[in-house]
Amino acid sequence: MVKVAVVEGDGIGREVVPVARDILAAVRPDIEFFDVEVGYGRWERTGSACGEETIADLRSADAILFGAVTTPPDPGYRSVLLQIRHALDLYANVRPIRGEGVDVVIVRENTEGLYSGIEWTEPDRACTVRVVSRRGSERIARYACPLAKSRRHLTVGNKANVLKSDCLFVEVCTAEAARAGVSCRTSYIDALCLDLLMHPDRYDVIVTTNIFGDILSDAAAYLVGGLGMLPSANIGERHALFEPVHGSAPDIAGKNVANPVAAIQSAAMLLEHLGDPASAAVVEEAVDRVLRAGIRTPDLGGVAGTREFGAAVLREVGRG
Amino acid sequence: MVKVAVVEGDGIGREVVPVARDILAAVRPDIEFFDVEVGYGRWERTGSACGEETIADLRSADAILFGAVTTPPDPGYRSVLLQIRHALDLYANVRPIRGEGVDVVIVRENTEGLYSGIEWTEPDRACTVRVVSRRGSERIARYACPLAKSRRHLTVGNKANVLKSDCLFVEVCTAEAARAGVSCRTSYIDALCLDLLMHPDRYDVIVTTNIFGDILSDAAAYLVGGLGMLPSANIGERHALFEPVHGSAPDIAGKNVANPVAAIQSAAMLLEHLGDPASAAVVEEAVDRVLRAGIRTPDLGGVAGTREFGAAVLREVGRG
Ligand SMILES: CC(C)[C@H](C(=O)O)[C@@H](O)C(=O)O
Ligand SMILES: CC(C)[C@H](C(=O)O)[C@@H](O)C(=O)O
Repeated sequence: MVKVAVVEGDGIGREVVPVARDILAAVRPDIEFFDVEVGYGRWERTGSACGEETIADLRSADAILFGAVTTPPDPGYRSVLLQIRHALDLYANVRPIRGEGVDVVIVRENTEGLYSGIEWTEPDRACTVRVVSRRGSERIARYACPLAKSRRHLTVGNKANVLKSDCLFVEVCTAEAARAGVSCRTSYIDALCLDLLMHPDRYDVIVTTNIFGDILSDAAAYLVGGLGMLPSANIGERHALFEPVHGSAPDIAGKNVANPVAAIQSAAMLLEHLGDPASAAVVEEAVDRVLRAGIRTPDLGGVAGTREFGAAVLREVGRG
Repeated sequence: MVKVAVVEGDGIGREVVPVARDILAAVRPDIEFFDVEVGYGRWERTGSACGEETIADLRSADAILFGAVTTPPDPGYRSVLLQIRHALDLYANVRPIRGEGVDVVIVRENTEGLYSGIEWTEPDRACTVRVVSRRGSERIARYACPLAKSRRHLTVGNKANVLKSDCLFVEVCTAEAARAGVSCRTSYIDALCLDLLMHPDRYDVIVTTNIFGDILSDAAAYLVGGLGMLPSANIGERHALFEPVHGSAPDIAGKNVANPVAAIQSAAMLLEHLGDPASAAVVEEAVDRVLRAGIRTPDLGGVAGTREFGAAVLREVGRG
């Protein structure tokens, strides 16, 4: 028996997650799902967007399928997603970008850097400490290197020409790559952002610090038709959460137009994580066949609704 | 008599700056140029990439035409460009991106944020403080708002959903926009990066903090054919420096293949800054005509050399 926590969250999370969950259920009837409520909707209802018991529930799962949350407009409010990443120590944010001529995986350090939470405000300035630790860099490098080894090579995205904190990151990552026998180069994040767009074929696995990975993955989404196509895994030693890279997109929520591909591919990553690459492949291939058949949501120029796209994938999964 | 300091620097800086300088000289015979040596070449020769007297020389100029410098591979070495920006307090880094369907100006705060220089290393971690000051935010907002007012609207690029330091930045920029009667919205930098690529027509003036502007402008270069096309101005209360956004590109240096458009357009921005928009327009239109005639350097798919492209622009300037 496998236990998967399902967090729909807010906005289009409530539309794409049910689609992904149905597909998971179809390929793996042994999964037991349980819902966990977090986010804006919960905050409106109860005054809290995420509680201690919520975290405990998430900890009890073998994996978490996550949608998207809207952060309440409350100063001093910390994003629920960041709270969860922190509480479950989900240190590796893995974002594959696959499409025509693009097959890249961005491995983003997910616990420190500018997301350290070490911040203060003075009357006339506000400061945030960017923290790069040896341990944090080592564990993300140790995640990225075997992946790069099983694929082609590694690029270390950094800004060591400006940030001393990135000298440590580069030092640790290149040392780890050498130890692992992985071909490795370094690239400044600004130049990398552009070069990835212009020559995606030059890249394979990219490891970088937290906010650089955040920006780089959104930019890279351009290569594959936007955020509707980007799944991600947030991996820790003991827990793992799978979510589309897109947010709750209140502007298009409730209209049955959101692209569920990112959520479905996140479910495929979840299957991979559960040690079931065969089912993951069934789901991925089903999505590919549906897209190739020209069934697409409006963001990709199509006319299919979220539910209709999901139903088409479900049919293909049945054949797969 | 107008005094312009010329810093070729290293690599392709030595190729594109002479081209831009010749064009400046052609439209403004009254300019007196003087050379200032900084960068890697100087460091190899003298052990110092930039001295106090260099800064004094730059201060004495009405404007600085700058190429690109290679940072010596010396740990603890601070980029010469950053030293100069800091010493001359060049707080506004203005990067226009113009092309087919794109007419955007990125106004990047150029003195603080992650470039604060407040950094330390401990045995097991390295930290950099991201500093956002009210004064720093106010002065960049006061630069961006009139510009946005004379154009269409302002977007404030930020990550206030994660960084408290950006709450201050957003607060100051939106207040200043309201005061100035400028239409203004805010956008998270990751989403902004993607949306700018997908819908450049939605953007006009974008104001953002230092490293976000650094990354965003490189990503935006994708829209106009790469870094060979991006000029910039670094503006302070008393000094101003004009440089292509690209670096010294040692890999293509000395081959007469570098695209001088960014350097030439930087020279046009210099003319604008000197209060001579007519000459700036002559230069810009000359570049446009040469490009439209199909004369292009290899990065744009053409066969023209750096010098040949420059000569073509000079001829057009003569006609303009
Ligand atoms: C919502 C936000 C806190 C989050 C982040 O910055 O990590 C998001 O942009 C992401 O990429 O997962
Ligand atoms: C060379 C480097 C220090 C510089 C920066 O980061 O500002 C460059 O990337 C730029 O955009 O001007």
